[in-house]
Amino acid sequence: MLTVLPVYQAQEQILHSMSGVTTSAMLAAAAESLGKVVAEQVVSPEMVPPCARSTMDGFAVRSEDTFGATDSLPSLLLLKGKISMGVEPEHKLGSWEAMEISTGGMLPEGSDSVVMLEYCEVMGDQVAVYRPTAPLENIISAGEDYNPGDEVLPLGHKIRPQDLGILAALGITGVRVYSPPRVVIFSTGDEVVSPDQSPNPGQIRDVNGPTLSALVRETGGIPDYRGIIPDSHEALEEGLLQVLDNCDLVLVSGGSSVGTRDVTARVMDQLPGNGVLFHGVSMRPGKPLIYGVGQGKPVFGLSGNPVSAIFGFLLFVRPLLRQLQGLQAFPAYLPYVEACLDTNFASPGGREDYVRVMLDDFVHQDKETAFNDLPGAKPVFGGPGLLNPVVKGDGYFVIPRDVEGLDKGSRVKVFLW
Amino acid sequence: MLTVLPVYQAQEQILHSMSGVTTSAMLAAAAESLGKVVAEQVVSPEMVPPCARSTMDGFAVRSEDTFGATDSLPSLLLLKGKISMGVEPEHKLGSWEAMEISTGGMLPEGSDSVVMLEYCEVMGDQVAVYRPTAPLENIISAGEDYNPGDEVLPLGHKIRPQDLGILAALGITGVRVYSPPRVVIFSTGDEVVSPDQSPNPGQIRDVNGPTLSALVRETGGIPDYRGIIPDSHEALEEGLLQVLDNCDLVLVSGGSSVGTRDVTARVMDQLPGNGVLFHGVSMRPGKPLIYGVGQGKPVFGLSGNPVSAIFGFLLFVRPLLRQLQGLQAFPAYLPYVEACLDTNFASPGGREDYVRVMLDDFVHQDKETAFNDLPGAKPVFGGPGLLNPVVKGDGYFVIPRDVEGLDKGSRVKVFLW
Repeated sequence: MLTVLPVYQAQEQILHSMSGVTTSAMLAAAAESLGKVVAEQVVSPEMVPPCARSTMDGFAVRSEDTFGATDSLPSLLLLKGKISMGVEPEHKLGSWEAMEISTGGMLPEGSDSVVMLEYCEVMGDQVAVYRPTAPLENIISAGEDYNPGDEVLPLGHKIRPQDLGILAALGITGVRVYSPPRVVIFSTGDEVVSPDQSPNPGQIRDVNGPTLSALVRETGGIPDYRGIIPDSHEALEEGLLQVLDNCDLVLVSGGSSVGTRDVTARVMDQLPGNGVLFHGVSMRPGKPLIYGVGQGKPVFGLSGNPVSAIFGFLLFVRPLLRQLQGLQAFPAYLPYVEACLDTNFASPGGREDYVRVMLDDFVHQDKETAFNDLPGAKPVFGGPGLLNPVVKGDGYFVIPRDVEGLDKGSRVKVFLW
Repeated sequence: MLTVLPVYQAQEQILHSMSGVTTSAMLAAAAESLGKVVAEQVVSPEMVPPCARSTMDGFAVRSEDTFGATDSLPSLLLLKGKISMGVEPEHKLGSWEAMEISTGGMLPEGSDSVVMLEYCEVMGDQVAVYRPTAPLENIISAGEDYNPGDEVLPLGHKIRPQDLGILAALGITGVRVYSPPRVVIFSTGDEVVSPDQSPNPGQIRDVNGPTLSALVRETGGIPDYRGIIPDSHEALEEGLLQVLDNCDLVLVSGGSSVGTRDVTARVMDQLPGNGVLFHGVSMRPGKPLIYGVGQGKPVFGLSGNPVSAIFGFLLFVRPLLRQLQGLQAFPAYLPYVEACLDTNFASPGGREDYVRVMLDDFVHQDKETAFNDLPGAKPVFGGPGLLNPVVKGDGYFVIPRDVEGLDKGSRVKVFLW
């Protein structure tokens, strides 16, 4: 009954089960939309900049009037005053005329370029120009950045600081974004008590509730930690039925033992809806992952081991949480730090191996295999029940299913925590 | 009077000017401390786990009693019942005894290991064990993860999800962190109007206020955008004097023209305190950066060009904002995506060049120079006054001061926006 899938197949089944499902769109104030996902393409309503502007301090001219100007034979132009900042120039530039202009100033009608201050000399009511300009030189034209109808932000785009800049430039003070997914988090286990309680002998405090809540927050969701459910079919079923209608996703962690794992799987299987889709993934750590759908909502059964729960989240929950808020499930590019493995590392093969490491700049003793420009990656050993390898560590790298270990000196891509 | 410094010297001067200065420490609820920085080393007050626990479903035994057990000659142990989850076992295990235990169960006194369920067979009141166990096998010992007095989180550590896990395990519900720095943001310029206003001819809406606010937020600070100050010595001076006492850092953007830049520099130089430290950095974009100290507070004059302002922030403001909240100014490892430059790119040399790029998986036409496993990096052209190269782009790479351009096919490290 335990169907163990390769990682990519498990990911496909999860994402497919919620294909086309997103949270609802909402209107957010631009200032509150950082990190949220665009739910409706943003199109430019106007030109940016709205008028031609100078990018230099100098003189606005008609480039044809400066043709051939040199140090010995400057163009002599009639100076028609200075352009004030933020005001439309009153004068329309005629032939053989110039106006003084500052960076950011609006070009007068008739001019097509700006000569830099250092190539000009004012002589009474005239200005001598010692260099020719080309049309459009030292200016930004009206609409050079954006024109009406240009796409500004595509559907599914995650909003970054510069995106708020262009929204501001366009006077767009609100933007339609996907609502942050609401994620209910349950911990289970008769031995588990709340972090603010003193455990009796045999009990431990809940680690996964706070950890998963933080991971949900980092992924753009709103965590709703509902505390600890005892190891009983009825209690878990009741807990799930209470929340399924009012959330976008449920995480149940705990139940690492076969018996309690079975409880979670059976409860999930009996929920109205599709039931359990799979039960186990060929990876280490994190193998005992259960995924199912109840009342149309995705439900994950994560391991009670904290490190397994973290990897279960990163590999399976995170892509779905991204998809639910309108993002690509997997980012096109996930940044990493390339490093040099500082020891031989055996991996069992047949399953993906997520190796927790510390990075270290001082481990390149083996001249033959070391890359001097790379930090060293030092595996932090310890089972999935120990937290210190992920608290002391910097990140992890992946050994694929078909690779049985890596040699000392191998290049690995380390994803930072 | 314009002192132009190399990037690293400018960074050194900025960080040195605020050496030893941090925001005050505050007590934060653990759940609210994600992303904040530890202001007081966290030391473990107790053992994690508090007692020895099983990592498997099976039978708790004394390993010496299973010595030499095989399929044909199992050890026969007296079964002394089942250990309930979350309860201290009442029975103390004697010689030739075993107790049934689930994953996460507390080991009974006298036992030192667990035999997995699949290597055992219950026969009436006895259990046959077909494999020997080693001491500590399939258990986590009391304190194996953390012992009293162990460092849990060092001073200056940025709190991640797993760190909240170990705090929860230890029953630590509050943690001392550095307060988020309060950053006042002014935009300047007679031509600049608020994003919610319709600009008249010659005016533009403020881009830098919203962009810098978002960058401050991403860096862990609290932005306090105070709107637009006209280009006048008095107005800027008044604005700065109003805020210096009640913030940790000030950003003034705008004043791209020589005249207004001079206003900013002069005002900063006349503030009570150290005055302007430097004025200009040898980089592109972002050269016209001013830095000074007024009333003991760091004040940056960033370019009015939005792209220059962004790089000024990333290279100079961000390290100081990190230092102010107790972090290392520069992260030990900054993740990147390695890519293959898809064109020859000339750089003037003598200054650092920050090249904005799009990443693209389909540009490897030149078999000789392409790295097939790398995405292509395609420079997005456009001056520092245009937003679309940073809105459409994925990130940037750096050409060092002493390099005059890169050939098509060069490997570059792209830092994503």
